[in-house]
Amino acid sequence: TKGKLLILPGDGIGIEVMREVRRVIDWLSKKRGIDFAIEEALVGGSSIDAYGKPITDETMKIALEADAVLLGAVGGPKWDNLPFEVKPERGLLRLRKDLGLFANLRPAMCFDALVEASTLKPDVVRGLDIMIVRELTGGVYFGTPRGIETLPDGSRRGVNTQVYTTEEIRRVARVAFDIATKRNNKVTSSEKANVMESGILWREEVTHIHDTEFPKVELSHMYADNCAMQLVRNPKQFDVIVTDNLFGDILSDCAAMLTGSLGMLPSASLGAADANGKRKAMYEPVHGSAPDIAGKDLANPIATILSFAMALRYSFDLGEEAALIEKAVENVLAGGLRTGDIMQPGMAKVSTGVMGESIVRALDKL
Amino acid sequence: TKGKLLILPGDGIGIEVMREVRRVIDWLSKKRGIDFAIEEALVGGSSIDAYGKPITDETMKIALEADAVLLGAVGGPKWDNLPFEVKPERGLLRLRKDLGLFANLRPAMCFDALVEASTLKPDVVRGLDIMIVRELTGGVYFGTPRGIETLPDGSRRGVNTQVYTTEEIRRVARVAFDIATKRNNKVTSSEKANVMESGILWREEVTHIHDTEFPKVELSHMYADNCAMQLVRNPKQFDVIVTDNLFGDILSDCAAMLTGSLGMLPSASLGAADANGKRKAMYEPVHGSAPDIAGKDLANPIATILSFAMALRYSFDLGEEAALIEKAVENVLAGGLRTGDIMQPGMAKVSTGVMGESIVRALDKL
Ligand SMILES: CC(C)[C@H](C(=O)O)[C@@H](O)C(=O)O
Ligand SMILES: CC(C)[C@H](C(=O)O)[C@@H](O)C(=O)O
Repeated sequence: TKGKLLILPGDGIGIEVMREVRRVIDWLSKKRGIDFAIEEALVGGSSIDAYGKPITDETMKIALEADAVLLGAVGGPKWDNLPFEVKPERGLLRLRKDLGLFANLRPAMCFDALVEASTLKPDVVRGLDIMIVRELTGGVYFGTPRGIETLPDGSRRGVNTQVYTTEEIRRVARVAFDIATKRNNKVTSSEKANVMESGILWREEVTHIHDTEFPKVELSHMYADNCAMQLVRNPKQFDVIVTDNLFGDILSDCAAMLTGSLGMLPSASLGAADANGKRKAMYEPVHGSAPDIAGKDLANPIATILSFAMALRYSFDLGEEAALIEKAVENVLAGGLRTGDIMQPGMAKVSTGVMGESIVRALDKL
Repeated sequence: TKGKLLILPGDGIGIEVMREVRRVIDWLSKKRGIDFAIEEALVGGSSIDAYGKPITDETMKIALEADAVLLGAVGGPKWDNLPFEVKPERGLLRLRKDLGLFANLRPAMCFDALVEASTLKPDVVRGLDIMIVRELTGGVYFGTPRGIETLPDGSRRGVNTQVYTTEEIRRVARVAFDIATKRNNKVTSSEKANVMESGILWREEVTHIHDTEFPKVELSHMYADNCAMQLVRNPKQFDVIVTDNLFGDILSDCAAMLTGSLGMLPSASLGAADANGKRKAMYEPVHGSAPDIAGKDLANPIATILSFAMALRYSFDLGEEAALIEKAVENVLAGGLRTGDIMQPGMAKVSTGVMGESIVRALDKL
């Protein structure tokens, strides 16, 4: 086989969209003789229901041994009132942390066929292609001390710690600069160095990596609030944006929504390269578990199918097959098929299943 | 006089736009017999140049005694490389902290005449009217420990602390709910309770104030990343958004940019009410010091003039005069005058000075 793939459908529409990925996997096996050693396990709410925790040690073990993890989505109202430490999201955060996936690649690109789906004017988003590189295992998500304490007078105090080290910043900066060299050679680094010392360190270390290792990449710095504004004002000014865990969470979602088609956007989270240049990796759609439409065969499976394509390219060295899948998706869209989330006048509205089938049929025709 | 007003033009276009506010102040004096005890002082870079610090103790003393502070904008490339503690922004942050201005009111509204200035489709933003209530004296902006330390191996570690107490959350929540009762009765509270304990406390305390003091206001909770998305997807779903200092910084700038006319948006920062119901208050435009166009008579003075109108309404009980100024601004826009930032085909492009004059002339005609 080409390697080990762990599939974690998760919750809500994660389960449905992953079924469509399975069709693509079957197609690769039948039509191109490409096979994976596949395991499937639970994460998030479905794991809580089965085992009382959002991810088990056993599943973590399989994840650590896998060449790639493909995740659907986690969470839902059913588990919203659970204590912090056993919420569905904890499963996702443990995967990121224990696999050391420090670089989260979130492309925000506008598909030509879907320009009209954006709430922004077509001219503002046509051809949009931004890559947000978000630090994923540091910052306020994992910093200590953290927690809620009750003070002597009965009032409470909630604390989290934003912390970054030289090395944490440098390694994600390298990923960003490296990606930029394969794109338009421009990196915008975003923080709040005007109010946070951790932002000052961020700016200095990113600048250091730039000056010493990637002097030919164009680097600029932008405060995170301004970055949010500029994304709305003129998103095409950006090529690669590199930023921390929390700012990245917000800015990448904002950027994703500019495209108007969240159901289309994949993401990859990468760890450090080992001696053989292999990186631990997890791939997942940018969208969430969408409890409101879960189980109704309405979800758009494209983001997860494209996440699988990213896995083929980055983890299994199957760039050609990745390109085929991307092309098939394009052709299906050009043919006028749309799930509800990207529906437009004059197009044909189809279910999750029909979209998946159609992509496989389009693969057959390539 | 009606009370004490401290004017702090600050840096860059802050100086020019404040000149236009002076015209309006003169008009109020001449035509309506309304006078203020006005003092003017330096803040930000201009104060650094004159006194070596972004705000002097003497200016702080005047600010503490004023009924309202009107600020232009601070900062610019000239002072970008100064050490953290003496940067222009520190002047602004000290004003906020020492005056106890914990509630920052940032309206994001779309002016009918300027719907086309937005990068969003007209239908998405026409009639937009959101009030963001941002906590302004707590959170990661002021939390300790903070700083950059050098570790034994020579690498560094940057730390900031996100911290909120029961009381800090409750008082800003009250402001938000109170404002909602005068608007559409809806509050969306935003945090990252799925990853931060300080967000859990935020959610619990906002809910507590809702349940015990404002049960009739509709309250919902939204993670900050989703809030950024929803602002782009469908901003009109919001009435009042209440959020912390850092999320508020980003979300309010994102919301402001949706309107396409940052040069139009005022803001108010309020402290606690004293025994007489008086609050310390500072008013300022949402835009920055815009060094690129500073000194060129190109800046849009409307945001600062509207900030002054907010001061009249909230700090001097001159709601009627505030409404006159707002009406005059509307009329000038309806008459086709535009500064460069909001210029549209078919309109007349005017300078900062001409815009200010025209607003005063429009006041004369009311
Ligand atoms: C589910 C949540 C913990 C997560 C995050 O905040 O990182 C999500 O918003 C994301 O961006 O992947
Ligand atoms: C200038 C800066 C310190 C400030 C902030 O971050 O609060 C600004 O962005 C704002 O929103 O008023």
